[in-house]
Amino acid sequence: MQDEQLAELAQQLRVDAVRAADAAGSGHPTSSMSAAELGAVLLARHLRYDFDRPEHAGNDRLVLSKGHASPLLYAMYLAAGAIDDEELLTFRKKGSRLEGHPTPRLPWVDVATGSLGQGLPVGVGMALAGKRLDDIPYRVWVLSGDSEMAEGSVWEAVEHASYEGLDNLTLLLDVNRLGQRGPTRFGWDLDAYARRLRAHGWHTVETDGHDVRAVDEALSEATATVGRPTAVIARTDKGHGVTAVQDQEGKHGKPLPDAEEAIAELGGVRTARVQVRTPPPARVLHARRSGGLTLPGYEKGDEVAPRTAYGEALTALGAARTDVVALDAEVGDSTRAEYFAKEHPDRYFQCYIAEQQLVAAAVGMYVRGYVPFASTFAAFLTRAHDFVRMAAVSRASVNLVGSHAGVAIGQDGPSQMGLEDLAMFRSVPGSTVLYPCDGNQTARLVAAMADLPNISYLRTSRADMPVLYGPDEAFPVGGSKVLRSSHRDRVCVVAAGVTVHESLAAAALLEREGIPVRVIDLYSVKPVDGGTLQTAADDTGCLLTVEDHRTEGGLGDAVAEAFSDGRPMPRLVRLGVRNIPASAKPEEQLHASGIDAESIAAAVRLLVAEAMVRP
Amino acid sequence: MQDEQLAELAQQLRVDAVRAADAAGSGHPTSSMSAAELGAVLLARHLRYDFDRPEHAGNDRLVLSKGHASPLLYAMYLAAGAIDDEELLTFRKKGSRLEGHPTPRLPWVDVATGSLGQGLPVGVGMALAGKRLDDIPYRVWVLSGDSEMAEGSVWEAVEHASYEGLDNLTLLLDVNRLGQRGPTRFGWDLDAYARRLRAHGWHTVETDGHDVRAVDEALSEATATVGRPTAVIARTDKGHGVTAVQDQEGKHGKPLPDAEEAIAELGGVRTARVQVRTPPPARVLHARRSGGLTLPGYEKGDEVAPRTAYGEALTALGAARTDVVALDAEVGDSTRAEYFAKEHPDRYFQCYIAEQQLVAAAVGMYVRGYVPFASTFAAFLTRAHDFVRMAAVSRASVNLVGSHAGVAIGQDGPSQMGLEDLAMFRSVPGSTVLYPCDGNQTARLVAAMADLPNISYLRTSRADMPVLYGPDEAFPVGGSKVLRSSHRDRVCVVAAGVTVHESLAAAALLEREGIPVRVIDLYSVKPVDGGTLQTAADDTGCLLTVEDHRTEGGLGDAVAEAFSDGRPMPRLVRLGVRNIPASAKPEEQLHASGIDAESIAAAVRLLVAEAMVRP
Repeated sequence: MQDEQLAELAQQLRVDAVRAADAAGSGHPTSSMSAAELGAVLLARHLRYDFDRPEHAGNDRLVLSKGHASPLLYAMYLAAGAIDDEELLTFRKKGSRLEGHPTPRLPWVDVATGSLGQGLPVGVGMALAGKRLDDIPYRVWVLSGDSEMAEGSVWEAVEHASYEGLDNLTLLLDVNRLGQRGPTRFGWDLDAYARRLRAHGWHTVETDGHDVRAVDEALSEATATVGRPTAVIARTDKGHGVTAVQDQEGKHGKPLPDAEEAIAELGGVRTARVQVRTPPPARVLHARRSGGLTLPGYEKGDEVAPRTAYGEALTALGAARTDVVALDAEVGDSTRAEYFAKEHPDRYFQCYIAEQQLVAAAVGMYVRGYVPFASTFAAFLTRAHDFVRMAAVSRASVNLVGSHAGVAIGQDGPSQMGLEDLAMFRSVPGSTVLYPCDGNQTARLVAAMADLPNISYLRTSRADMPVLYGPDEAFPVGGSKVLRSSHRDRVCVVAAGVTVHESLAAAALLEREGIPVRVIDLYSVKPVDGGTLQTAADDTGCLLTVEDHRTEGGLGDAVAEAFSDGRPMPRLVRLGVRNIPASAKPEEQLHASGIDAESIAAAVRLLVAEAMVRP
Repeated sequence: MQDEQLAELAQQLRVDAVRAADAAGSGHPTSSMSAAELGAVLLARHLRYDFDRPEHAGNDRLVLSKGHASPLLYAMYLAAGAIDDEELLTFRKKGSRLEGHPTPRLPWVDVATGSLGQGLPVGVGMALAGKRLDDIPYRVWVLSGDSEMAEGSVWEAVEHASYEGLDNLTLLLDVNRLGQRGPTRFGWDLDAYARRLRAHGWHTVETDGHDVRAVDEALSEATATVGRPTAVIARTDKGHGVTAVQDQEGKHGKPLPDAEEAIAELGGVRTARVQVRTPPPARVLHARRSGGLTLPGYEKGDEVAPRTAYGEALTALGAARTDVVALDAEVGDSTRAEYFAKEHPDRYFQCYIAEQQLVAAAVGMYVRGYVPFASTFAAFLTRAHDFVRMAAVSRASVNLVGSHAGVAIGQDGPSQMGLEDLAMFRSVPGSTVLYPCDGNQTARLVAAMADLPNISYLRTSRADMPVLYGPDEAFPVGGSKVLRSSHRDRVCVVAAGVTVHESLAAAALLEREGIPVRVIDLYSVKPVDGGTLQTAADDTGCLLTVEDHRTEGGLGDAVAEAFSDGRPMPRLVRLGVRNIPASAKPEEQLHASGIDAESIAAAVRLLVAEAMVRP
């Protein structure tokens, strides 16, 4: 394709973006128009992608980080022959794959975008996979807006990309000067971006984003650069090519005022088709080995910390399956992920203290076919909440593991305590939330996670805990374990993690007082074992939940939800963390928060005394 | 104090850090020892702080971003005479103010730290207040570790500080080369940090962090620098001064192996006291004006979007109270915070697309006595989850407002939909969670928020909604409104926001079919109006919650929690968003998620048909 045709293609992309938004009655054509030459040059000259085989391992990856510019992406798909004109005009309509912001409902979209600042971190994950795992020379192209450069997550990615020498990664920065409500911080000061990126170790090229030859040269320079990532920083006009909107404030996120006039000004509708370069043959080397998983086993009565069992089980899983990778945020000694690092250093990724990049890299590796386990303190996974949210929209299967759950960590105090993590992960659509109390249980759940779809979360504990179960016990996801039971039980205590052990101690105390109680280990917080809870409700009429977590959003809510289909309800009582803890020993913390054995026993006695339970 | 005495003071701080951790049996002495000269020089020569009057408006602010180095901070307090030696040795013990990581339980600590990368963003908020609101020449000192420079939030703050020309802000960067599990990315390459910070517009000084004269000169250069913030980048040794631990891996976060020997090597216990410079007299100018609040009023039957009412009410609040400030993350046109900007530009803070900095700046301004309202899309507040979590530990009173709630936003799709926000904010200790359905209700709740303690969250909706309430109606926090009621009600529908309107429509439909239902507007999701729910439970026996939010953690869970004290429970049924939405019109979205009037009516009919409700 000659330069003149390329310029024509850019105009075509603009026209089609305008048409799509006009048909939808909403959308972001002006944000699409600024990047039309970037899109045209990329599609026609640099992208290697087989649109008929999106699963081709050698395909380049294209991430539209400025997801609101979806009309541009869809216009590119049309030009590539991946969709037809009829489908383009379904943009933003019910049932259409062409959503307001791209999602993997389209086979060529790897990850959902639309929450700004996520494209580059996820792109880093894909590029890392290409370089360190796949050994396939695909290139990762991330098209970002200038406004999103204010997101800290972008700088986590910038740092990580240069540190890892990701020369297979190119950032196309569309500097159109205008955010949604007015000018960006740096306007058209391309050098402001370039200075920063160079200081962080990137190669940069500044260019006129509307000159196809200049853009082409910039992209060629990017692909020729060795040893570090390149940013192509392009000066553009928002709404370029249409006088009514070009470089004007107040034109964000709406169709053009007069689409017909705009299309005429852009030279009318075109129907050029681009022959996109297909990638060379490629084969992914991480094909899963079958069988051979030998999980660690712990003897009943011994003590082991769930975090330790996690580290050991993950290491075993890594030995059995070469598609399992582990990611750390500089706390691998605490989470015990470092055990994996020692055995499988080639599949261990140190993300430093950058939890957004941690989760984004895991998503990027999932996209490339891996089974990622990313771990840090449970408390610090809140840093990555928006990445978890978007990973769910991306239908990504990612395993997240949060250590140092609850007040039970003791002296370090509230900043280090995961107390909101169950609430956060329960609200993720399609998620699985697991919270073991024992080494063998932890190991089995870690193995199960590797085959689960969507977001899976495992909450691990810091302290050693008695081994309750044998190494061959099964722990199905969605199940629970009844640890004490009699036909005379007056209350059923529902616990998980550390509170299982406290509940068993409370039950022993109460037994001596003639108050039999049932104890359920609800290790699967989501999905929850409604059947066992229903039986307990039928048998006892009263469920007491005890959790080392805020009383909102966690175990108590999960148990209540199990009865939210209109069935008759048991009485429900919940114990959980309602205070803001300070420093104290673990046992002092559990007592101060009212979730230790003594507090549980006291709550049961009160229920009995107030005749709120069956005689 | 002469240089020799300063060096002695630094050794004293080391010794006291070692003693505190030894007495506690845990803690981070080696991370304290690296920064001892930074702490000594700051305390003795640069900090202006009246420890007897922590409320003094002219006091400098000191934020220990590397909160694990709390032994250093407490040793400084001892040297300043703020605490005594006996209290120092209560470190990390139950009941002590000297927690593992500092919190505002100590009057000289403004904000809790311990989640790395938060000190600088909060410091930016304080420095902004000093420069743009207080007009008091206090200086903000942030002491950070090198590991935390990997956090994106730090770079949001770096960018914002230089953009705002915060020459009253100094970052003391303790480059001790070792994170908790090994070397940092850049080791002792001070210039790696300096290059980056300079590119982002900072002044930088590199120094030997163990040479008190060099540190003093660096701090003097920082205070003399005009027009931009300064970073003092200090090369230090972790565990400096004690051979057994100095610059060694594996010595993080534990007491020294032999405290006695270490103290001897450090020259023994010293008891020097520092006369810290007191600040000049200062007066805060934002004393609250009393009365005069004229909220916007809307006529019943008119239509207004809750987000619009928020913008108008906030503007009115800003006119009545000069301590109210507003913060935006570049979406003020969408959240309607821009109305405030037009009337009160001096109290409006544009944080660009950096939600962590948005919340951190709000916390920093709260610390300085302001009443901040920070708003962005509800979905994007998940970016700041960890900052919200830590703000709660800081006991900060901060108002957060999330617009574009739920699937009701329509075509933009799931990336823009706040669907997890209620779960996130309910789990914050001491929080208030409000979700209005009407303009007048929104306005009243905005006014109430200004006087609430802790984290308050308001969820606003994008679309115009009919005005249901008169402008003089009261909406107490913790209350609800019964919108339809009869003694024959067979089900009680509990709704908030958009689903209130859908529920009313469903009730009208059902009435024509002879099925009377009660409708409660549960605008206060936390605290929740248990009394009204109990009455509804007594009267109808069945509560149907309907929410434009995930079925976990939101309205359904809040209603269940209201009955979690062992009372007999009504039957509970919940409708909420269980799918991953795509693009569609708002009414199509509500229907697809099963929360529109038709779906509500269908659910009630099913309950009646299955005889799950009273005849």
